[in-house]
Amino acid sequence: MKLEKNWITGFVDGEGCFFVGINKNHTMKLGVQVLPEFVVVQHKRDIKILYALKEFFNCGIVKVNHGDRMCFCVRNLNHLFTIIIPFFEKNSLKTIKKLNFLRFRWIINSMVIKKYHLDHEGLDKIILVKNRMNKDTIR
Amino acid sequence: MKLEKNWITGFVDGEGCFFVGINKNHTMKLGVQVLPEFVVVQHKRDIKILYALKEFFNCGIVKVNHGDRMCFCVRNLNHLFTIIIPFFEKNSLKTIKKLNFLRFRWIINSMVIKKYHLDHEGLDKIILVKNRMNKDTIR
Repeated sequence: MKLEKNWITGFVDGEGCFFVGINKNHTMKLGVQVLPEFVVVQHKRDIKILYALKEFFNCGIVKVNHGDRMCFCVRNLNHLFTIIIPFFEKNSLKTIKKLNFLRFRWIINSMVIKKYHLDHEGLDKIILVKNRMNKDTIR
Repeated sequence: MKLEKNWITGFVDGEGCFFVGINKNHTMKLGVQVLPEFVVVQHKRDIKILYALKEFFNCGIVKVNHGDRMCFCVRNLNHLFTIIIPFFEKNSLKTIKKLNFLRFRWIINSMVIKKYHLDHEGLDKIILVKNRMNKDTIR
């Protein structure tokens, strides 16, 4: 199945999620781990779409999400930085989800370029931006 | 806001719904009314998308769906037949929703061309096809 760029943008505007998890992890220097991920969830009957996304982006995995739901998921920081972020910079989202994407991008950039997640001050900034995600009511 | 055709197809693959309601209506000859509709539901924060769809298709209405949810909705049989159906024939859906669309198209065609909804035999056929919608587990 061949996917067009605009189709992907439309589909992600509907079904995609840019998410940043902040998990406790005692093996990390600061005791927490920042886990950004790009996820598209679908019922297993549409698993072909998820594999087509994996093939298109040439990264990520397809796995069970919950029950009958599967997901295409990209967690690798380098893949997010070099593949996913540039794609949605060139192919702009149209819904309010774009604001989440911009915050997601800020967090990824701050991790890759500034290594913010490795010191307390930077981590606080990341958490501040993360807490503003998925809460927008106006464009 | 300008929408590209492929973006619309991707967005509808995620968020759109082809629905056929069969309602009791004693003013109708057969006592029931067939109500096909194409609907896209969004949180009110993304109402701009719904108005952009209305402008693109040049038909339908934007109205409250439920609570904070708004929808773009096309119920006019002529608009479904001459605008919505031809659009998704030319711009093919990629998810399992395509099967719903094909059944939806069959029902619309049977109503416009064959007037199936006006006699018992035709109405039974419509109900048979309607009952197979939104129940697919394999492509």
